Amino acid sequence: MDHLEFNKHTSNTYNEELEDIRNMLLNMGGMVEKQVQKAIQSLLQGNAKLAKKVIKKDLGINAMEVKIDEECTQIIAKRQPAASDLRLIIAVIKSITDLERIGDEAEKIAKSALYLITEEYSGEYFVEFEKLGNLVIKNLTMALNALARLDAEEALKVAKNDDLVDSEFEKLNNEIITYMSANPVELQKAVRLSWSSKALEKIGDHTKNICEYVIYLVKGKDVRHIDIETIKEEYF
Amino acid sequence: MDHLEFNKHTSNTYNEELEDIRNMLLNMGGMVEKQVQKAIQSLLQGNAKLAKKVIKKDLGINAMEVKIDEECTQIIAKRQPAASDLRLIIAVIKSITDLERIGDEAEKIAKSALYLITEEYSGEYFVEFEKLGNLVIKNLTMALNALARLDAEEALKVAKNDDLVDSEFEKLNNEIITYMSANPVELQKAVRLSWSSKALEKIGDHTKNICEYVIYLVKGKDVRHIDIETIKEEYF
Repeated sequence: MDHLEFNKHTSNTYNEELEDIRNMLLNMGGMVEKQVQKAIQSLLQGNAKLAKKVIKKDLGINAMEVKIDEECTQIIAKRQPAASDLRLIIAVIKSITDLERIGDEAEKIAKSALYLITEEYSGEYFVEFEKLGNLVIKNLTMALNALARLDAEEALKVAKNDDLVDSEFEKLNNEIITYMSANPVELQKAVRLSWSSKALEKIGDHTKNICEYVIYLVKGKDVRHIDIETIKEEYF
Repeated sequence: MDHLEFNKHTSNTYNEELEDIRNMLLNMGGMVEKQVQKAIQSLLQGNAKLAKKVIKKDLGINAMEVKIDEECTQIIAKRQPAASDLRLIIAVIKSITDLERIGDEAEKIAKSALYLITEEYSGEYFVEFEKLGNLVIKNLTMALNALARLDAEEALKVAKNDDLVDSEFEKLNNEIITYMSANPVELQKAVRLSWSSKALEKIGDHTKNICEYVIYLVKGKDVRHIDIETIKEEYF
């Protein structure tokens, strides 16, 4: 396993600063992960209180993004980082944008949950939605672990998993659309469930982006927009 | 009008490097703008050839993002930029992510266009879709102008316009859903039009993000996640 060491500077303060932004990033990741879990839970269990909590908490995540960005900019200005330190900072700046947007998607799911609760949706396709949700959360957790341990191979594995998320989403969404055709009374509610599934798929995309930044961070190569199936030989 | 000057370094090469990334950013912006225009056009005119062109061109935009990111990282490593130069580079790194994702949304619209052409959609709500599209393109053009001229006031104006995009999208989407209920035969196709409207709304969000980076670049303050209506007094 490739592993990068960042604590190599003669300045202890600099080491601490770099460690700080890594910790802040991982904290933010943990918060976002919980938001996604709770949003899905609120929808499946019809828990309006939980959904409202998720919506409120999103403000805190937004604030974290701004704070981490500021820290990164200050370190660049003050420390003039090079090589792997600079890659760490660029990877952090990029990753937090995706984390913040995963937070936004969780908020959207929580809002749909509130709608479905109010409109008393029948719960059709909740089982399949939960299955997709579990898959997305599993990938997100693995991506955050890969980020914490700077494990490029794990990150590549997770990035490749995104194809399964996409195909499961397509399947579920087609089923929901068929259901809408057959049950016009449920149509408006089923649309909301379709949106929530789309939000899960989007979370999968952002998770994949984070994996690509981990690979960039560890390997120093940019793997974005390259077909992830073909890069194994070239990069590892 | 606030205006930043970047060409103040004793090193001409450094000046050229900064000017280069600004030009690359503006080029990428122009390309993305055209992609959105063409994607909307392909849907409204049922032009499959144009839609396929948009899908193919998206690869070039992805490649541009990676290239500009690399340039920015190299300048940071080599030139150790501070103050406004560093803000420029951070703003570029952030903006190109949004530009790339606007490109992705344009590609989605083009894909929906292909579907609607194949399935021979009736064209219901195309007029309203075009109206929303024009609004979104107008804002995107204004945002790119504000970026080119580093005009924070213009950027703030455009960012505020996004509320109108959101409300127009909500209105259109509700109408499409009502139409779906009444016309089950057109349902699957109307879903695709709804997705395309959602893509326009997303482009609006990314446009707003770009405006916020322009304000950050010119004013040196981070305005993300602050209610845009309340910031006028504080920042200007």
